[in-house]
Amino acid sequence: MQRIKLVFEYEGTRYHGLQVQENAHTIQKELESAIHSLSGEWVKMLFAGRTDAGVHAVGQVGVFDTHSSIPPDRWSFALNSSLPEDIRVRRSEAVGADFHPRYQAFSKTYRYLVYRSGAGQVFYRDRALCYREPLDLEQMRQAAALFQGVHDFRAFCASGTSVKTFAREVYSCELCEDPPLLWLEIEANGFLYNMVRIIMGTLLEVGRGRFSAARISQILDSLDRSQAGPTAPPQGLYLLKVSYPGRIGDGRRG
Amino acid sequence: MQRIKLVFEYEGTRYHGLQVQENAHTIQKELESAIHSLSGEWVKMLFAGRTDAGVHAVGQVGVFDTHSSIPPDRWSFALNSSLPEDIRVRRSEAVGADFHPRYQAFSKTYRYLVYRSGAGQVFYRDRALCYREPLDLEQMRQAAALFQGVHDFRAFCASGTSVKTFAREVYSCELCEDPPLLWLEIEANGFLYNMVRIIMGTLLEVGRGRFSAARISQILDSLDRSQAGPTAPPQGLYLLKVSYPGRIGDGRRG
Repeated sequence: MQRIKLVFEYEGTRYHGLQVQENAHTIQKELESAIHSLSGEWVKMLFAGRTDAGVHAVGQVGVFDTHSSIPPDRWSFALNSSLPEDIRVRRSEAVGADFHPRYQAFSKTYRYLVYRSGAGQVFYRDRALCYREPLDLEQMRQAAALFQGVHDFRAFCASGTSVKTFAREVYSCELCEDPPLLWLEIEANGFLYNMVRIIMGTLLEVGRGRFSAARISQILDSLDRSQAGPTAPPQGLYLLKVSYPGRIGDGRRG
Repeated sequence: MQRIKLVFEYEGTRYHGLQVQENAHTIQKELESAIHSLSGEWVKMLFAGRTDAGVHAVGQVGVFDTHSSIPPDRWSFALNSSLPEDIRVRRSEAVGADFHPRYQAFSKTYRYLVYRSGAGQVFYRDRALCYREPLDLEQMRQAAALFQGVHDFRAFCASGTSVKTFAREVYSCELCEDPPLLWLEIEANGFLYNMVRIIMGTLLEVGRGRFSAARISQILDSLDRSQAGPTAPPQGLYLLKVSYPGRIGDGRRG
C-alpha cells in the first residue's frame, strides 16, 4: 500500500465543487473514477482544501492510497489520459502513509481575480468577477493590509460552518494590478468558509467608497458577519498553492 | 429602413464558426435569432471577416437592416439580454445604407495567443495554443518582421480558397511577450484563408530551430503552401479589431 500525492488544477465552472456529494458532478468523482479506471481500485481521496461550485484551482493537493504498481511519478501522465480536459494533474509523488494534505499544510494561498475592461469579458465570464465601476485602489490596498496578522475572522465567515475556532493567521494580503486585471492574493494558515470571497466583497465596498479602509478593523472586531460586505461570486476565486513545512522553497516562516 | 452596425465579441469554442451553415451552431445564427426575437424580422447579417470553428473575436463587426424603432445605440443592450453569454455586443450604431463591414474595412488586426506555462493550462485550453517547448524568440521576432509589406501570400493560404488575388499588405507583424503569454499581433489590409494560423505555425518552426528566420523570404517567394509550416490550431486566434477609414483613432495610414 502506498500513499500518492497529486498536485492538480481545474476549472471549476462545470462542477458542483471539489468534494463528492450525492448525485452531483464533482471533481473528486472524476479523479476517483480515473484512478479506478487505471488501478481497478475505488479510493477515497483527501484534499488540502475544499472549493465550491465554480471555484478554480491551480495548485490543489490530494492524496489516495493504492496497491497499484504504477510508479508514483507516472500517475500524473496516466490520470491525464482519462480525465476531462478541465482537470489536469501537474505532478504526482509518493508520500508517507501519515501525510494528510490539509492537516499538514503550513499555508494556503488564494487569488481572487477581477476583470476591469468592457472588451474581452466573454473570455473572463467564468474566470473572474467582471467589474467596470471606478475603484479607489489606494484605499483598497490600505484595507487589504489590515487583514494581515492573527484575527478572529468570524465576521468574514459564512454561517452554517461547523468549525470551532475562528482565529486564523493571514501571512500576507495584497492587492495587485496589471490592467485590465486586478487581483487579491492572500496567504494564511487556514481559511474559514467563504472567507476570501467575503474579504473581496468587502474590499470592493471600500473601493466603491461605501466603507473607509479603517472600517476593516471595526468589522473584524465586531465578530458580526452582517457588518462585512457581500460575498463575491465564486468564479473569481482560485486556490493557487498549498505549502508544506520542511521543504526548501515552500516559504515556511519563523 | 436603417442599417445597424454592431461591434461584438465571442468565444468561438462552442460554435461551428461565425457564418450560417446548414444544421450547424454558428454565431451568425445566434445573432440573427436574437434580432428576430426583438424586432420580429429575419435579417441576413454581413460581417467584416469570417472566423472558423474555435476562433474568437474581441472586435468583430457586423451589420443588418431593420425597420425596427429600437434606437441604434440601444441594440447592444437589447441583444445582450437574449444572446448566450459567450457572445456580447459591445456597441451598436446607425451607419449609411451602403456601409459594408468587409469591403470598407481599411485593416483587420488578429492576435494569435500562446500559453507557455505548465501551471494554469486548463484555463487556456480553449483560448490559446499551450506550448511549453523552448523557443528562440529573437529568431521568431526577426522572422515576423519579414511578413511586413506587400507580398503574394499564396504560400500562407489554405487550399480550397476562392479568392483570385493573393497579394496582401501587412502593415505590422510583431511578436510580443508577457510571460507566460506570448502572442503574434498582425495588421493587414486583408487576410487569406488560414493565413494567420499558417504564419504562426511557421514562426513556431523558426522558434524550434527547424527553419531559419531568413527562410521566411524564401517561403514567400516559393508561392508554395507545402514550404510553410503547419497550420496552428484555431483556439489561439482572435480577431481583435477592424478599422475603417476616415475616423480619428482608427489608425489610417498614408
